[in-house]
Amino acid sequence: MTSIAFIGLGHMGAPMAANLVKSGVMVKVFDLVPEAMKSLTDVGALAAKSACGAASGADVVITMLPAGKHVRSLYLGEGSSDKGLLDVVAEGTLLIDCSTIDAQSAKHVAEVAASKGFEFVDAPVSGGTAGAAAGTLTFICGGSDSGFEQASKVLSHMGANILHAGGPGAGQVAKICNNMLLSVLMIATSESLQMGIDHGLDPKVLSEIMKVSSGGNWTLDKYNPCPGVMESVPSSNDYQGGFMVDLMVKDLGLSQEAALLTNSCTPMGALARSLYVNHARQGNGTRDFSSIFEQFSHLQQIKSKG
Amino acid sequence: MTSIAFIGLGHMGAPMAANLVKSGVMVKVFDLVPEAMKSLTDVGALAAKSACGAASGADVVITMLPAGKHVRSLYLGEGSSDKGLLDVVAEGTLLIDCSTIDAQSAKHVAEVAASKGFEFVDAPVSGGTAGAAAGTLTFICGGSDSGFEQASKVLSHMGANILHAGGPGAGQVAKICNNMLLSVLMIATSESLQMGIDHGLDPKVLSEIMKVSSGGNWTLDKYNPCPGVMESVPSSNDYQGGFMVDLMVKDLGLSQEAALLTNSCTPMGALARSLYVNHARQGNGTRDFSSIFEQFSHLQQIKSKG
Amino acid sequence: MTSIAFIGLGHMGAPMAANLVKSGVMVKVFDLVPEAMKSLTDVGALAAKSACGAASGADVVITMLPAGKHVRSLYLGEGSSDKGLLDVVAEGTLLIDCSTIDAQSAKHVAEVAASKGFEFVDAPVSGGTAGAAAGTLTFICGGSDSGFEQASKVLSHMGANILHAGGPGAGQVAKICNNMLLSVLMIATSESLQMGIDHGLDPKVLSEIMKVSSGGNWTLDKYNPCPGVMESVPSSNDYQGGFMVDLMVKDLGLSQEAALLTNSCTPMGALARSLYVNHARQGNGTRDFSSIFEQFSHLQQIKSKG
Amino acid sequence: MTSIAFIGLGHMGAPMAANLVKSGVMVKVFDLVPEAMKSLTDVGALAAKSACGAASGADVVITMLPAGKHVRSLYLGEGSSDKGLLDVVAEGTLLIDCSTIDAQSAKHVAEVAASKGFEFVDAPVSGGTAGAAAGTLTFICGGSDSGFEQASKVLSHMGANILHAGGPGAGQVAKICNNMLLSVLMIATSESLQMGIDHGLDPKVLSEIMKVSSGGNWTLDKYNPCPGVMESVPSSNDYQGGFMVDLMVKDLGLSQEAALLTNSCTPMGALARSLYVNHARQGNGTRDFSSIFEQFSHLQQIKSKG
Repeated sequence: MTSIAFIGLGHMGAPMAANLVKSGVMVKVFDLVPEAMKSLTDVGALAAKSACGAASGADVVITMLPAGKHVRSLYLGEGSSDKGLLDVVAEGTLLIDCSTIDAQSAKHVAEVAASKGFEFVDAPVSGGTAGAAAGTLTFICGGSDSGFEQASKVLSHMGANILHAGGPGAGQVAKICNNMLLSVLMIATSESLQMGIDHGLDPKVLSEIMKVSSGGNWTLDKYNPCPGVMESVPSSNDYQGGFMVDLMVKDLGLSQEAALLTNSCTPMGALARSLYVNHARQGNGTRDFSSIFEQFSHLQQIKSKG
Repeated sequence: MTSIAFIGLGHMGAPMAANLVKSGVMVKVFDLVPEAMKSLTDVGALAAKSACGAASGADVVITMLPAGKHVRSLYLGEGSSDKGLLDVVAEGTLLIDCSTIDAQSAKHVAEVAASKGFEFVDAPVSGGTAGAAAGTLTFICGGSDSGFEQASKVLSHMGANILHAGGPGAGQVAKICNNMLLSVLMIATSESLQMGIDHGLDPKVLSEIMKVSSGGNWTLDKYNPCPGVMESVPSSNDYQGGFMVDLMVKDLGLSQEAALLTNSCTPMGALARSLYVNHARQGNGTRDFSSIFEQFSHLQQIKSKG
Repeated sequence: MTSIAFIGLGHMGAPMAANLVKSGVMVKVFDLVPEAMKSLTDVGALAAKSACGAASGADVVITMLPAGKHVRSLYLGEGSSDKGLLDVVAEGTLLIDCSTIDAQSAKHVAEVAASKGFEFVDAPVSGGTAGAAAGTLTFICGGSDSGFEQASKVLSHMGANILHAGGPGAGQVAKICNNMLLSVLMIATSESLQMGIDHGLDPKVLSEIMKVSSGGNWTLDKYNPCPGVMESVPSSNDYQGGFMVDLMVKDLGLSQEAALLTNSCTPMGALARSLYVNHARQGNGTRDFSSIFEQFSHLQQIKSKG
Repeated sequence: MTSIAFIGLGHMGAPMAANLVKSGVMVKVFDLVPEAMKSLTDVGALAAKSACGAASGADVVITMLPAGKHVRSLYLGEGSSDKGLLDVVAEGTLLIDCSTIDAQSAKHVAEVAASKGFEFVDAPVSGGTAGAAAGTLTFICGGSDSGFEQASKVLSHMGANILHAGGPGAGQVAKICNNMLLSVLMIATSESLQMGIDHGLDPKVLSEIMKVSSGGNWTLDKYNPCPGVMESVPSSNDYQGGFMVDLMVKDLGLSQEAALLTNSCTPMGALARSLYVNHARQGNGTRDFSSIFEQFSHLQQIKSKG
């Protein structure tokens, strides 16, 4: 029988923790916001009075936080008057951080953890709040083989795909490589569809053609950005739900940070960041990221004039 | 029993015409280069003395030429002392142009053809010389429903997928939309893989992860640009064979021409053209288009120093 | 005593022709719009009944038209039932086209003109309607030395700077090279100023520093895009007047056409076109081109929320 | 009589310190490299045994270091077993950092300094090693009015222009805004010149035309990137000397870091970074930054084939 500490109960963390509870393990939760705690205790989780309180004595600690500085602060006590988790957890505790953060922070925490004898796995997720609720998330993990093996068992209660990208930090690197690529797929698919429309083509027909041709990509398969082409995707629901522009901007910032560190040349990723930042600054930050299509179609402009 | 005229026997046209001959129809061929003709008459085609000679009396005319000006010249006699094909073909002849050309020229020839009572179908291909030889090409067609229906029967002897993009010119538009998107997929996948490599990831592992995640796209499935990741693709054969950089530059030029006509905004496609032109000007014009990966890895640089 | 035919009396042509009249030469004018003619006959020009009527017998013909097809049609009769000007003008007539058009059309008309013994000078202008009214335009000319010398005397009544870029078409090439560069200066200056503002700097102070440093450029000297930095420029007048976004989009289209012809690599110019097309499609086509600054500041957004 | 401590005697620091010595003030120097010290003691500077040794008792401390981490370490003792300079300097000591570093580090050190009662001025330079030797550098300063006033007097012995950009960190921000803009000017001027050349224009003539037109900018005035257009610039000396590509890559990295912090949208600056990183990775890191011209002309390619 395993006991798990889950720290960070936001839009993603809360449904993830709830799935762990459903799986039958004992889950102790903590969040700075009391309301966030209540939704979990209502379904059977135990409330801790602090992050350290949740973590001490647990077999596994899972964290879900906004940024690298929060992860460094929580695990290492950096810039905080509290002790770091690494100073309070029991020998043999498995540490899993599901936050999407900069790879450097993930590597650094993993190194300090290793120096104290702990396995630390970075395991950022993709799949959004819908995937979190359904337990179908994808986890992209970085860490040792044994760490990954142990983490997989726990993560399988919350996700459908558990992938091993490499050593410490590799989960974060793989995720931002993927999301940088995704942002370009979304923009390039949008501009290609709109150019077809501008020349009189039907976007449904053009989408079908490109999907089975060399232009085929995830956005055409699962997430067409052009309204009316696909049902049950954000583009057919005024770009509500899905993956927010602001989160894509965050991930593209992380990818550009990573590119700066290694002098990597990412012209498409850098341009995608500029276009998404521009889109966010025009007031679209909380809409789905496929709404970038409107930058090419200007449907919204036309609507507002109509 | 159908008789077909096939005009233009280059790297693509010759194997396409050969497949028609194999299917049992009578094929009359013409090309300005006598040697090109011989390879076809050797397998059973009849040689014509001129394009008009091949076309007059044929049930179907198929053309495979380098650019819009050649197509306009051949069909309309524009800028030529010869008559145009439209002035010599028999009533009811079906006209199919398989060239990849600007959509305007395709539309214009289709309009003139229609005014004289002919069905004209633009049917640019993808699949390369290998697909032409194997008879597995994809044809993306523009034209009326009846024209498409008739053309499909003929084209099925040379290809595996016959797609209908819309009215006259729509085949050309759909093809350049697809190829513009493809060029971006190739570059963005290359830069994402290299950024992973720069951070210590194994490109095979990263490719597998992105393939099943939201970064999934045709290049990861079929045509990985990173040497050593996939067997039997150009990247594992020093970027020989496949689809030449110079041809991608041509298609990206057509896509930018199309964007200018409709004031379409294609930031990714425009950047892809700049990067491919640069790559071609550095001496890579005849290599496979996945060699753009070297712009990010500079493997070639390292090799030449080694 | 010289007689001059002036054909095309739009926003630029009308004040240019008026300055010629003021200089004392006899000016015969023609435009398809009668009202445009009247403003010129009111100040002393003679009205012709057709373009050919104006040109036949004139010592110099000056044309100011929207695009290459109009210039080819007027001079060569291409696509028109009328004769071309080259068939009606008297021996020795000097031909000057002040339109901003594609270099190919300019070269082509110059070649036909030369084959008939005429000097043809392409002389696109910069300086806007204000410069046209004040007679302070810049003319960038292409043509032979003797053609340029003769044209200079005439153009000096309408402009302050008469520059010789090279042989036929070179005026058009130099103008679009310059305007492509200008578009990039405007955007890059805008994004640099806004990044300074985002970090708390005063745009006046930052402008002064960059102006005297290696970032110095024409937009900082004469046309600061940030509202409030400089008086009497469009940015301090809600981006009214000046050089319209739609005209910059036209010139960037010409520059990209030119780049396609020679396989030139222009990543900055191509990106500038995308950003200006996007800006135009968002409803800013008739505002001054320095309004691109708002894409970075989103002042307009903030205003509309206020 | 003022005594000055100068810490960091690299390519820039050494000639700057030498100019201070020549001005007659007492200069105590320190560098980790003994040879660097010797060149200064040879001309009359006093050698210190440590940075703290140089600084304690000085009226003014000047530092010239590679990156933000070195500046934080030296002044604050961050990540170091040594005391920070702020703990050893005498009351009233003026602190001037001439390094080009991230604005955040500059602001942070300035805040800590202020909390201990010291004036700290960030004063990054431009003008290269030639300007350092000649004493004609430009200093772009951030700090209080009184700090700037005091610093100006000292800096005037090493530079010709002392500019005040704003409060703490503003010098760093203004410098990277300027250098980001400069990188775009250089690339856009290069691609415009090459497009003109591709169309048969003489780059000297085109440069003269754009210089006096709206394309005018610092690179056309002082630093033409096309070989043979201007004498005594790096482009006419095989791109030797001047401002290295690697340093431009560093500054563009700082500018992108700054853009990430404030969610600023800098499409041109981001593209410039990609192009410069690519250029550096192709082996051009130690050549002058105007060598980016070769990415458009591929003169080098042609040369190496010749």
